[in-house]
Amino acid sequence: MIYNAPVKDIRFALNALADLPAICALPGNEDCTVELVDAILEEAAKFAEGVLAPTNRAGDAGAKWSPDFSVRSPEGFKEAWQQYVEAGWAGLRAPAEFGGQGLPALVSTAAEEMWCSANLAFSLAPLLTLGAVEAIHHHASEALKAIYLPRMSTGEWTGTMNLTEPQAGSDLAQVRSRAVPAEDGSYRITGQKIFITWGEHDLADNIVHLVLARLPDAPAGVKGISLFIVPKFLVNADGSLGARNDVRCVSLEHKLGIHGSPTAVMSFGDEGGAVGYLVGEPNKGLNYMFTMMNHARLGVGIEGMAVSERAYQKAVEYARERVQSRAVGSPEATGVAIIQHPDIRRMLMTMKAQIEAQRALALYTAAALDRAARHPLPEEKARNQALVNFLIPIVKGWNTEQANEITSMAVQVHGGMGYVEETGVAQYYRDARITAIYEGTTGIQALDLIGRKTASENGVTARALLAEARATADRLAAAGEASLSANLSGAVVEAERCVAFILESFASNPRLAAAGSVPFLKLMGIVLGGWQMGRAGLAALSQQGQEDADADFLNAKLITARFYGEHLLPQVSGLAAAIVEGAESALALPESAF
Amino acid sequence: MIYNAPVKDIRFALNALADLPAICALPGNEDCTVELVDAILEEAAKFAEGVLAPTNRAGDAGAKWSPDFSVRSPEGFKEAWQQYVEAGWAGLRAPAEFGGQGLPALVSTAAEEMWCSANLAFSLAPLLTLGAVEAIHHHASEALKAIYLPRMSTGEWTGTMNLTEPQAGSDLAQVRSRAVPAEDGSYRITGQKIFITWGEHDLADNIVHLVLARLPDAPAGVKGISLFIVPKFLVNADGSLGARNDVRCVSLEHKLGIHGSPTAVMSFGDEGGAVGYLVGEPNKGLNYMFTMMNHARLGVGIEGMAVSERAYQKAVEYARERVQSRAVGSPEATGVAIIQHPDIRRMLMTMKAQIEAQRALALYTAAALDRAARHPLPEEKARNQALVNFLIPIVKGWNTEQANEITSMAVQVHGGMGYVEETGVAQYYRDARITAIYEGTTGIQALDLIGRKTASENGVTARALLAEARATADRLAAAGEASLSANLSGAVVEAERCVAFILESFASNPRLAAAGSVPFLKLMGIVLGGWQMGRAGLAALSQQGQEDADADFLNAKLITARFYGEHLLPQVSGLAAAIVEGAESALALPESAF
Repeated sequence: MIYNAPVKDIRFALNALADLPAICALPGNEDCTVELVDAILEEAAKFAEGVLAPTNRAGDAGAKWSPDFSVRSPEGFKEAWQQYVEAGWAGLRAPAEFGGQGLPALVSTAAEEMWCSANLAFSLAPLLTLGAVEAIHHHASEALKAIYLPRMSTGEWTGTMNLTEPQAGSDLAQVRSRAVPAEDGSYRITGQKIFITWGEHDLADNIVHLVLARLPDAPAGVKGISLFIVPKFLVNADGSLGARNDVRCVSLEHKLGIHGSPTAVMSFGDEGGAVGYLVGEPNKGLNYMFTMMNHARLGVGIEGMAVSERAYQKAVEYARERVQSRAVGSPEATGVAIIQHPDIRRMLMTMKAQIEAQRALALYTAAALDRAARHPLPEEKARNQALVNFLIPIVKGWNTEQANEITSMAVQVHGGMGYVEETGVAQYYRDARITAIYEGTTGIQALDLIGRKTASENGVTARALLAEARATADRLAAAGEASLSANLSGAVVEAERCVAFILESFASNPRLAAAGSVPFLKLMGIVLGGWQMGRAGLAALSQQGQEDADADFLNAKLITARFYGEHLLPQVSGLAAAIVEGAESALALPESAF
Repeated sequence: MIYNAPVKDIRFALNALADLPAICALPGNEDCTVELVDAILEEAAKFAEGVLAPTNRAGDAGAKWSPDFSVRSPEGFKEAWQQYVEAGWAGLRAPAEFGGQGLPALVSTAAEEMWCSANLAFSLAPLLTLGAVEAIHHHASEALKAIYLPRMSTGEWTGTMNLTEPQAGSDLAQVRSRAVPAEDGSYRITGQKIFITWGEHDLADNIVHLVLARLPDAPAGVKGISLFIVPKFLVNADGSLGARNDVRCVSLEHKLGIHGSPTAVMSFGDEGGAVGYLVGEPNKGLNYMFTMMNHARLGVGIEGMAVSERAYQKAVEYARERVQSRAVGSPEATGVAIIQHPDIRRMLMTMKAQIEAQRALALYTAAALDRAARHPLPEEKARNQALVNFLIPIVKGWNTEQANEITSMAVQVHGGMGYVEETGVAQYYRDARITAIYEGTTGIQALDLIGRKTASENGVTARALLAEARATADRLAAAGEASLSANLSGAVVEAERCVAFILESFASNPRLAAAGSVPFLKLMGIVLGGWQMGRAGLAALSQQGQEDADADFLNAKLITARFYGEHLLPQVSGLAAAIVEGAESALALPESAF
């Protein structure tokens, strides 16, 4: 089950589409150069291919829970984690002041794609740890930072997010876990949390749980939720590990996929209360979680694209090897490799084109994250923050919804062998299925997109992005790419029609806007992905003239962009019709008639 | 995991759309009345709900192979099979002269939906058995029929299809299994077959394998394949079981889904040669398989629709129970059942509308099968056979491709709980995934559709069906259903454009036609499904005036048809663009660039 990190594709997206040199030039990124990033990508590729990818199949056998509440990670994971930590990968985007490398989000995101492709289940441990680092870094006291961040930034300790409870999934207003102040200034936490990714394991010496809970006097709803640090082992004043805290993993979920990642049911305070430390101010826990949600959701969007890439590679490999049936239209009776069959070709192109569009859009978003954090001009900071806010639900929702389709196509390319687990491609199909669910389902992303990200700013960012897409279409026309230009500009018109509908209906009858929210998210994904493919086509055209141009590579970029224009962008009109004309019929059936 | 057989929906599709009374009036169907079919549906529903559905979850634990080459079926399957046989369900469409009930394909297809929804893995045993019965009935000698059909028609013995070999999947020209004549007129079979559904088990006393193999002097390719009966136990002259034949199950596949159905690797002749009996004439095996392929492929189309129905029911049940978040646009802070959320509603409608369209198209096709078999007028026989030939790849391909999407939506409705195996909905997602693969992948169906079913008859049936769809659109306009009418007639125009493209390119450059073959299959599924939904809407409008009309039910039919028109039919334009304008870009990338 070979994985070949697509370094050339990633580098093209970084440099030509996400403007890496400009990101390296931002204040605070002075240590980051294009050459350094090249070296990082090469090393990350080696690590992903050589260390992480070989553990992926064994991971599918799952982590094992024991009645002593311990969890044994799958074969090879502990060794892989140690190497990951020792090589410094865990700290790629952790703050430099606490031992991380403080690299731009753009660079760490590029590396994260490789971890996710190589071993999605494994990659969740660092993803969650970095999320916890970010939350602590932004919101916790200096004292707490000093205790936890140095070990977490290096990956010596891992982190978790404890949000969900059985009655509180998407609706965190229902959180019931409680936190009672203790005399020493700490808190005693009680309650049960479910779906805790890497909630218990044997990779690291300590696990730092971030837990949402309510103080005794907290108001009801989301405004009464506070955030606490609850370490598995208490930390002594000298930094050494102390007593085992009153928190345990009482079971693991039996899941459809990502078996290598233990999904824990966590019980806090069975023996009186787990020791917890308040992060920031009381009752602001949900706000604190939101500040790191952009990174986490971008991360899941990367996961969707990355597992698609891995499945695509597997499909290509099989399609080259498997000989079956003669070539269409050929008089020769001899069988050919199925990659020569037009429908196999169409499937591989559909996968490849979408993956490239998704990677480009995700990295463009990561660059906006960096600009929002570090741009010297306040108006550019704000503009980029709005871009991030708008693009994140699209990258999260679209990449992951398509991951279901793309990994399914990869199964299909394998025919009957795809359905046999030993072939390995079914694992990608199962693994991918979680990505459109966790960190907010596509429905949640879409409500966020139409509400806080579109209606509440009167469509400013949506329209600005579509205007950029139109300008790209114009440049494509000028460059002679008539078909791609026409498909892109036609899709922009449809998208603008939908933005107008969403704005109007959100104000007059938000149920109509909500009925079209997920189709709108997908439509924006397809259009903005098409915009990125148009930009990729333009970049390829312009680079073709350069002296050391890689002609085959650039030609492939152009062909893939044209394919995207002819196969993906035309889907936009059907989605637009459903959004604008289909909202009423979506809601018309009485509940009893289902 | 309750299953409620949708008897009302099935009855509506049978009577209003597939014209059951006319099928009952065909010569030879005299014993079949609408009242009898009603009674059969009621009893089938009870059996599916009460006996088969409760075994489905246990089936997911899988069948167990033993080193003595035996296979133990999952808990409860053997008892369910016995009841199935005793109640006479196994023989519903088996020939009456051999102990079956000889009912029309239309009626047995309606019942098969329920078996497939209740327990897809289980349902494959009768499906394969009936396929074997059909092959033997049409092509074997009277002597072989007399030996095998009476026990197979009742389900006392089961049947299998042994086609695939490791190097011969879609490409049966590569079959290598050999058959050598013996002195007694029988043959000795040797070779290995894979992916043999219910190839070994403990449900029945004997298993009758139908095996494709080559005679010593056979020509190469598909014209040198013969069909043999190879029973697990030889049958004595008095009908009693004799010696164990030289055929054994050497392992079971570890699959993504349908775990309850043992998928066997079968080895023939390890001890010198399995005793086999030639069916019909030498070298005509593939033709014989083709004669039963229509039934088998229709059956798999039913499977896709049926597992979608089961997943839909599970999603509705969860959406009614799960309370999460306040209603969109509501000032109330209290949570509501998620079925009230517009995006959940949209997903449920998308599932429901497609399932109803698929059921209608499948039953319409089954009625055409009956007419092709029994219509007194030769020209009607021929016309219906052409309809069957054209519609089967669409029903097979479209229903099963959509089953992947529909069962995925059912998972999505469950949020995180959908990813937990104990919830049960993930099983439907895994089970469904095989249906677009076996009995010919969607790619194989699509090549069949554009070649033998469209180009070779110059598009006559395709255009005739589209003309009927246009006439339905006209009637809808006259009935005041402007939106559905416009969406349907617009889709017909696009479909006609695609038929013209397929005809032209198939003649001039078949690779271009093949590149669009699967999108064309899906497009035809959507359009013809829309035609059926239009007919359903017209039937509902006309029945609304009747005295004992079920107003709520008919209203739901209308709303669902309108939803289909506004959400599914608009997808056609994007598919048409990809087919007509996108063929070249699908094939342009050099093989090395993937």
